[in-house]
Amino acid sequence: MAKVLYDFIAEAGNNELTVKEGETVTITNQNIGGGWIEAQNSRGEVGLVPEDYIEAGLGSVSSLSAPSPFLFLFLQHDSSFCLFQASNGNDPWSVWNADPSGGSSNNWASNPEGTQTGKSAADPWGSVSQGHPQAYQGPGAEDDEWDDEWDDMKSTGGYAESESGDGGALQRGGTHASSMKISLNKFPGFSKSGPEIYLLCKQLAKGKDKLTIYTGEVGPVWSYPEAQLDCIVADPKKGSKMYGLKSYIEYQITPNTTNRPVNHRYKHFDWLYERLLDKFGSAIPIPSLPDKQVTGRFEEEFIKMRMERLQGWMTRMCRHPVVSSSDVFQLFLTYKDEKDWKMGKRKAEKDETVGVMIFSTIEPEAHDLELAEVDQKCEQFSRFTKAMDDGVKEILTVGNEHWKRCTGPLPKEYQRIGKAFQNLSSVFTSSGYQGESTLTDAMTAAGKTYEEIAQMVAEQPKKDLHFLMETNNEYKGLLGCFPDTIGVHKAAIDKVKEADKLVAASKITPQDKVTMAKRVSTMSYALQAEMNHFHSNRIYDYNRVMQQYLEEQVKFYETVQALFLTVYPSKFKPVLFIALLPGRQLHSA
Amino acid sequence: MAKVLYDFIAEAGNNELTVKEGETVTITNQNIGGGWIEAQNSRGEVGLVPEDYIEAGLGSVSSLSAPSPFLFLFLQHDSSFCLFQASNGNDPWSVWNADPSGGSSNNWASNPEGTQTGKSAADPWGSVSQGHPQAYQGPGAEDDEWDDEWDDMKSTGGYAESESGDGGALQRGGTHASSMKISLNKFPGFSKSGPEIYLLCKQLAKGKDKLTIYTGEVGPVWSYPEAQLDCIVADPKKGSKMYGLKSYIEYQITPNTTNRPVNHRYKHFDWLYERLLDKFGSAIPIPSLPDKQVTGRFEEEFIKMRMERLQGWMTRMCRHPVVSSSDVFQLFLTYKDEKDWKMGKRKAEKDETVGVMIFSTIEPEAHDLELAEVDQKCEQFSRFTKAMDDGVKEILTVGNEHWKRCTGPLPKEYQRIGKAFQNLSSVFTSSGYQGESTLTDAMTAAGKTYEEIAQMVAEQPKKDLHFLMETNNEYKGLLGCFPDTIGVHKAAIDKVKEADKLVAASKITPQDKVTMAKRVSTMSYALQAEMNHFHSNRIYDYNRVMQQYLEEQVKFYETVQALFLTVYPSKFKPVLFIALLPGRQLHSA
Repeated sequence: MAKVLYDFIAEAGNNELTVKEGETVTITNQNIGGGWIEAQNSRGEVGLVPEDYIEAGLGSVSSLSAPSPFLFLFLQHDSSFCLFQASNGNDPWSVWNADPSGGSSNNWASNPEGTQTGKSAADPWGSVSQGHPQAYQGPGAEDDEWDDEWDDMKSTGGYAESESGDGGALQRGGTHASSMKISLNKFPGFSKSGPEIYLLCKQLAKGKDKLTIYTGEVGPVWSYPEAQLDCIVADPKKGSKMYGLKSYIEYQITPNTTNRPVNHRYKHFDWLYERLLDKFGSAIPIPSLPDKQVTGRFEEEFIKMRMERLQGWMTRMCRHPVVSSSDVFQLFLTYKDEKDWKMGKRKAEKDETVGVMIFSTIEPEAHDLELAEVDQKCEQFSRFTKAMDDGVKEILTVGNEHWKRCTGPLPKEYQRIGKAFQNLSSVFTSSGYQGESTLTDAMTAAGKTYEEIAQMVAEQPKKDLHFLMETNNEYKGLLGCFPDTIGVHKAAIDKVKEADKLVAASKITPQDKVTMAKRVSTMSYALQAEMNHFHSNRIYDYNRVMQQYLEEQVKFYETVQALFLTVYPSKFKPVLFIALLPGRQLHSA
Repeated sequence: MAKVLYDFIAEAGNNELTVKEGETVTITNQNIGGGWIEAQNSRGEVGLVPEDYIEAGLGSVSSLSAPSPFLFLFLQHDSSFCLFQASNGNDPWSVWNADPSGGSSNNWASNPEGTQTGKSAADPWGSVSQGHPQAYQGPGAEDDEWDDEWDDMKSTGGYAESESGDGGALQRGGTHASSMKISLNKFPGFSKSGPEIYLLCKQLAKGKDKLTIYTGEVGPVWSYPEAQLDCIVADPKKGSKMYGLKSYIEYQITPNTTNRPVNHRYKHFDWLYERLLDKFGSAIPIPSLPDKQVTGRFEEEFIKMRMERLQGWMTRMCRHPVVSSSDVFQLFLTYKDEKDWKMGKRKAEKDETVGVMIFSTIEPEAHDLELAEVDQKCEQFSRFTKAMDDGVKEILTVGNEHWKRCTGPLPKEYQRIGKAFQNLSSVFTSSGYQGESTLTDAMTAAGKTYEEIAQMVAEQPKKDLHFLMETNNEYKGLLGCFPDTIGVHKAAIDKVKEADKLVAASKITPQDKVTMAKRVSTMSYALQAEMNHFHSNRIYDYNRVMQQYLEEQVKFYETVQALFLTVYPSKFKPVLFIALLPGRQLHSA
C-alpha cells in the first residue's frame, strides 16, 4: 500500500492508471523500470503510475527514482517491457490513427463554454508538470535549469514497433500529435472573460513589437521576411553531467542566418514550445513537440526519429514569419553563450504580451470588418480545418493499416511463395530425370526473386509511406491546435455580439463597444493571415510529399518488374511438348 | 424424426452429416433446397444429408425429391445457400489446401495391408452411388443410360467464392483432386491376393492388345504415337429431356484426328473415368474428374470452370500414349452415332483385361530386372511422388492464402487509400485558396489511380495465380493416384519376396517363382515408363505455367508502374516554397 502524492491522469492506450492526490493504492509491480510502477486502486483497476507520484514508502522504489548509473539499465529493461505492451494490443502506430470516440486528441467536440474552459485530458503531463517532484537534486546542482533530468523522460511509456519482426525493430516516439494547450497561467479568469483582456485593454503595442498585416493577392497576409529562416537539426550527442550520473542527448541546431551551431537538449525545445504557446497560441497554432519518450532513449533509431521530428517542428516554426522573427525564437537559435541564453530565458519568461494580448500587437493595413464577416470567416476556417482533420486522420488510419500489411503479412507471403518455388525446384532436381536443369534453375531463380521482393515490400514503407505518414501526422498535430485558436476567436465574437446588452446593463460604455468591434476585426485579420499562411504551407507540403510518395512507388514497381525480368523470360527456354516426350527418339530414329 | 435409408459419409468442410442406414435423425430444416435437408443425429450433431437418403415421411421433403420443373428453382436457391455456407467458414478454395491431418485425400498414410484394402472415405459418393435411389423414373424413361439425371447432381454442396465481393462471384467446382480409387468390383479378393492374379496367370495378351515398352534415352518408355492426339472441349449447351422436365449440360468434344465433334454430358466423362480406372489404374495413375457439383450448375462461371477442368483432364488423357490409344478412349472421342456409342459402351464394360491384368498386355523390350532393382526403383518413385506431393500442396496452401489476400484485403486497402487521397483533395478544393488546382487535380488523379490499382490487384489472380493453382491442383490429383499405383507394385514385390517360402510350403511351384520374378520385372518396366511419362509431362507443364505466371506478373508490375506514371511526374508541377508564400508579392512589388 502506498499514498499518491500528486494527481496523475492516465493516457489512453498506455496501460496507465489515473490516480488522485491522497488516494491509497497497492503497488503490484515495482520492477517495471523507466520510472514507472504498476499499481492497483481501491476499485481494483491496475495500471502504470510514475513512481515518484507515489509516496516513497518502499526502499526499492525510491532507489529507482534516484538518478544513478543504473538508470540506463532500467531504460533498457523498459524497452522490452514496451515491446510486450505492443503485442498486448497497444498499437505502436496508434498515434497515426484517427481517434475513434472523442478520446484524448478530440478537440472538435462542441464545447458551449468555449474550448478554453474545459480542462482537456489530452496531455496529463501538461497539467501536472508544475507540481512534479524533483526526484533528486544531486550534489552539484548549482543550476536546476540544466539538471532536471526527468524532463526528458517524464512521458508515456512510449511505443515500440514490433511488426517488422526480425531485427532492427524501429523505435518510434509516440507523438501526441494532439492539440496545443494554451497556457492560462497568466490569465486566471481567462476562461470566461479572456477575450475582454484584449478587447477592452487600454494600451496597444507600439514600435518594434508591432505585427503588421498586409493585403496580398490572397487577402490578409503576415509580413514575410525577405530571407527565409531555416535551420538544421543534426548531430545528436549523448552528453553526461554530474560525473556521469546523468546522461542526455544534445542536438546541434544551425540556423542559416548565422551558420553557427547552438546546442539544445529536448527540454530546451520544450521550454521554447511553452514560450511560443504562451505568446502566440491565441493567434497562431503552435504544434506540440514530438512526444517525450523514455523507451529506447539512447537507441539509435529512436534518436534519429526524434531528431527528424524536431527538425520538422523547427522547420515549421522557421517558416512562420511571426514566430521566426520573435525574440524568444531568435534567442533559441542564436544565443551566444550560456549567460546570453540565461538572460534571454528570464526575459522571455517575463514577457507579458502573451495569450490574447498578442492581438494588441497586430495592426492590419485595411479597413475594419463587419462582425458578420468576421463571424463568417471564423466559421469557414473552423469548417475547413475540421474537414481537413477528418481527411488527414483517414489517411493516417488507412496508411497505418497499409504499413502493417506491407511490413507484416505481405512480405511473409512473398517469402513463402519464394520458398515453395525453391522447394518444388529441389524436389524436381531429385527426380534424376535428365534435361530439366533449365526449368529447375529458373524455378529456383523465381523463388529467390520472390524472397527479394518480400524484402523490398517490407522495406518500401520506410521509403515512401513513412514520409506520407509523418507529414500527415504533423498536420494532424497542427490541425489539432485550431480548435483552441478558433475558440479564442469565437469567444471574442460572442462577446462583441452581446455588446449591446452589456452597454444597456452599463457594464461597458458605448465607446467600449466600438473598440471591441474594431479589435475583433483585427483578430479576424490575424486569423485570415494565419489561414493564408497555413494554406500556402499545406499546398507546398502536400505537393512535396505526394510527389515523393508517388516517385518512390514508381521506383518500387519498376524495380520489382526489373527483378522479375532477371528470371522471365531470360531464364526460361521455350519447351516443345513433343521434344520432351520420352519415346520421341524411337520414331525419329 | 425420420429414418435413414442409406449410408452417407459426410464430406469434410461441407456441413454434411454422416449417417448410417437404419439410424433415426431429426429433420431440423427441410427448406435447404437442391436435394438436401438439414438433420440432427442422436449425438446432437447437425448437418446436411441428401434428402432421398432419408425416409420420405414428410410430404414436402418427398415432393422436393421428385424431378419437376421446380428443380432448377431449387438449384438456384441452393446457390445462395452455398454462398451462406462459404461465409460460415467453408473455404471455397479448400480444395487447393494441403490436407492437414490425414483427411480424405491423404493416401500417403502407411497401410501395411496395401492401399487397396482400406476403404477410402475420399469419395463417399463412389461407395454409395450404386445403392442410390432413383428418385423418379418419369413417364418416358425408356433408356436409363441417358435419363438418370441425378448423376450430374448427386455431389457435395459445392463451393461458392464469396471473397470477390461485389458482383460476379466466381462459382467454382470443388474438385476433389484426390486419388483415384481403383475399382475392386471385378476382383473381390484382390486386397490380399491381388497381384497373384497377374503374377501367376496362365495366358498373357497377344497381338493388338500388346503394349510394348521400348528403351529410350531416359530408360523404359511407352510407345508414343507418331501424331499427338488432342481434343477440344467446347461449346457447353444446356439440353433438356422429358418435355423439359430434366435439363443438363452437354459439351462438344472435337478430336484433332477426326475433327468431328461428339457430344458428351458430364456423366459420360464419369463413365469413361471409371472404365479407364478399371482398366489402367494399376499401371497408370488416372486422375479424378473435376468434382461433381450442384451449386450453380447452370451458372456461366461454373460451366466455364468445369469445362476448363474437363479440358485439362482430356488433354492429360490424350497425351498418354496408352490411354489415348485404348478402344474405350477412342470410342468416347470418335463414336459415330448413338448405336455405335451404346455398343462400344457394352463392350468396354465387359472388358476383362482390367485391374492388375493390364500388366499381362505389357511386353518390355529389355532383359528382366533383378528384384532388388525393381524394389529400389519402386521405392525411389514412391519417395519422389511423396516429396512432390508435399511441394505441390505447399504451393497450393500459400497460393490459396495469396489469392485471398489479393482478392480481399489488399485491393480494399488500395481502394481506401484512393478514397482517402480523393477525399483530402476535395477538402483542399473547398479551401477557397487560389492556385492549388494543380495539386488537387494531381491528388485526385493519384486517388483514382489507386482505385484502378485496387481493381487490377483483385483481378490479377485470375490472370496468373489461377493457372498456377489449376496446374498444381491437377498435379495434386495426379500425385494422389500414385500411392494406389505404387501400392500394386509394392504388393507384387512383397509376393515375389516371399516366393521361396511359398515354394517351400508347396503353395507355388519353382516354375511359378520364376514366372513371378519375370512378371514383377515387367511391372517395373511399366512403372518406369509411366514415371518417365510423368516426368516429361511435369517438365512441360511446370515450364509452361511458371512462364505464364511470371509473364503475367511482369505485365502486372509494368501496368501498375505505367498507371503511376500517368500521375507522377506528369500531373505534378515543381513548387517552390518561396513562390507559395502569400506575402511574397509585397517584397517583389
